[in-house]
Amino acid sequence: MPIISKKGQQMPASPIRKLVPYAEEAVKKGKSIYYLNIGQPDIKTPEIALQAIKECNIDILAYSRSEGSETYRQKISAYYSKHNIHVTHDDIVVTTGGSEALLFAFGSIMDVDDEIIIPEPFYANYNGFSTASGVKVVPVISKIENNFALPPIEAFEKLITPKTKAILICNPGNPTGYLYSKEEIQKLAAIVKKHDLFLIADEVYREFVYDGNTHYSVMQETGLEDHTIMIDSVSKRYSMCGARVGCLVSKNKTLIQTVLKFAQARLSPPTLAQIASEAALETPQSYFDAVIEEYVERRNTLISELQKIDGVKIAKPKGAFYCIVELPIKNSDDFAQWLLENFDVNGETIMVAPAGGFYSTANVGLNQIRIAYVLKKESLIKAVNILKEALKVYNN
Amino acid sequence: MPIISKKGQQMPASPIRKLVPYAEEAVKKGKSIYYLNIGQPDIKTPEIALQAIKECNIDILAYSRSEGSETYRQKISAYYSKHNIHVTHDDIVVTTGGSEALLFAFGSIMDVDDEIIIPEPFYANYNGFSTASGVKVVPVISKIENNFALPPIEAFEKLITPKTKAILICNPGNPTGYLYSKEEIQKLAAIVKKHDLFLIADEVYREFVYDGNTHYSVMQETGLEDHTIMIDSVSKRYSMCGARVGCLVSKNKTLIQTVLKFAQARLSPPTLAQIASEAALETPQSYFDAVIEEYVERRNTLISELQKIDGVKIAKPKGAFYCIVELPIKNSDDFAQWLLENFDVNGETIMVAPAGGFYSTANVGLNQIRIAYVLKKESLIKAVNILKEALKVYNN
Repeated sequence: MPIISKKGQQMPASPIRKLVPYAEEAVKKGKSIYYLNIGQPDIKTPEIALQAIKECNIDILAYSRSEGSETYRQKISAYYSKHNIHVTHDDIVVTTGGSEALLFAFGSIMDVDDEIIIPEPFYANYNGFSTASGVKVVPVISKIENNFALPPIEAFEKLITPKTKAILICNPGNPTGYLYSKEEIQKLAAIVKKHDLFLIADEVYREFVYDGNTHYSVMQETGLEDHTIMIDSVSKRYSMCGARVGCLVSKNKTLIQTVLKFAQARLSPPTLAQIASEAALETPQSYFDAVIEEYVERRNTLISELQKIDGVKIAKPKGAFYCIVELPIKNSDDFAQWLLENFDVNGETIMVAPAGGFYSTANVGLNQIRIAYVLKKESLIKAVNILKEALKVYNN
Repeated sequence: MPIISKKGQQMPASPIRKLVPYAEEAVKKGKSIYYLNIGQPDIKTPEIALQAIKECNIDILAYSRSEGSETYRQKISAYYSKHNIHVTHDDIVVTTGGSEALLFAFGSIMDVDDEIIIPEPFYANYNGFSTASGVKVVPVISKIENNFALPPIEAFEKLITPKTKAILICNPGNPTGYLYSKEEIQKLAAIVKKHDLFLIADEVYREFVYDGNTHYSVMQETGLEDHTIMIDSVSKRYSMCGARVGCLVSKNKTLIQTVLKFAQARLSPPTLAQIASEAALETPQSYFDAVIEEYVERRNTLISELQKIDGVKIAKPKGAFYCIVELPIKNSDDFAQWLLENFDVNGETIMVAPAGGFYSTANVGLNQIRIAYVLKKESLIKAVNILKEALKVYNN
């Protein structure tokens, strides 16, 4: 039999995926599951986006331009200007989700064995994109004790080698919910300028910022234009994860020209979803206000319920809709599986994401889980109660 | 300024793309252009596919499964069985176009510096996917004199090294229109088995086969199950290039497991386009009969008109909707640009794809162009007349 590539062998399986068979088995046995493990919001997609699809009169579903349709890119740049990000449509390449934007960024700036520094815990698929690109992730640890704030800049500096090509942040963060301050972004700006690196910022959760905080984009930092690459997506903003539309934004012309070559090779981003995404830009502010209010309530409920459990440590999220929780256990992989296989409260159990998969360093975060608060308040209360009862049984 | 990757620098620009600014300039100056350069058919998308989108009642545009929705994969396998290809839904991973299927295949079976043998001329983006994957294309030349039939198998054998991991064919071929016979597929089967290689077959033009010929898929060849990877797409079949839905098919379980890890990292293929693609599978045979009849007429018209030009050599296509034409010129890049910049017949000119970009070997095919016969008969007649008049002027 012909052999699989080393790269293919090394590609990480999704940390959540491993649990899916146990969840399916639990459902078969009649258990109900509260899914706290996934970032698929239950929020409705704006009607205006879905309506645009129903009303579109095309008779040939043709390719769009490789860089995305011009009208859509123009409207995205108008949207950004409302967020104090000043770019033109030529600084934007529309991609098939934020995923493809990351792959294009990695391909454009890194060769095999190059290194990218990422504060951990981080979005697990950064590992997948790195492996697919033959690139080495160099983690710099951030800590639950200070809500996963930016690690001291010296910790980054120590890790920089001639192979280092970029620093990647997710802001606000998945899985941490941490929102970087302007000062933190400026510290990163200084270090990437000093060492001539790229700063990639995954800002797909831009709208999901709470408690009166303001999101400060890497694109707002002047003098950093050649260094910054912003990754964006409609997935979470408009609860349209299945659209698979994102974009890569940069003022660095050479970079954009390079990204375009990757974009041309795969022809175009999805046409129908671009129509929906363009219409989604007209979503009224009231939609976001309601969504943010809902998430803040969910977060507050989740945190206050979790705080009732002995021995639980929580990093209070300022944005996105994830939360890392440290539990009085040794191994959350085992615990998550046990929850599905061996535990229930009146026929109900929970599915959580073991946090080990969000760390690149081995054996870190093994007592942590990630909770996505994408369920209604009442469900979250019940789910945390199940967690509480489960810990009592599991630890005996 | 931080630097671009070597890979990014090496990424080939689309051979057609270079001409776009000249075409735009020509249009600005009031010229009309017959676009013979692109594979975007003017055929209408089946109504049933577009209607499915209008009628779908979703309120959250959610992720699909990473491998594609189960019902869609089941229906694809039923479609294949009508084509004597017997696979289950578990042998299929739905991808974002055939492009992503190729990237997943390359990633799963090849590491940096590995080699893939491809008969040239070949679909230009194979170069892009190879560069993006760090893989080396080893071309084996096929000739216009015998319609671009499979080169002697000894020519492949000579090129095989320990780095060779796969042979890639496109059947029927873009840009050649050549349809491999069962005997040719069996010769390839023997050599990949002998050297334990993968055989990747891009079969996206399966339906476009003329003159009573039958398409023989690599998936029909028994005993080859662990070696074959089929690439497919809805783009051309249903004239829905903008859907960005394709798939990768293989009976090799280890390969599919590996491809799935790449698929999971990018989350899911586009949801809306999967709904359209699933509905498209119900397209009646009458649609294809009419489309094939149209293409046969176009091809016959194109060939007979081209044969009226002195010094022109044509490889008669048996499938797809492309044709490589050898012209009595030295450099088709220059000629194609000149057509846009300096020539017209009553304000009309043509845009063609210089064939050099379809060859990996330097300085081969420079006197050839690719014509896509995706225009109506009357337009093709006018377009070929423009080519005829242009050659008279250009060669003086």
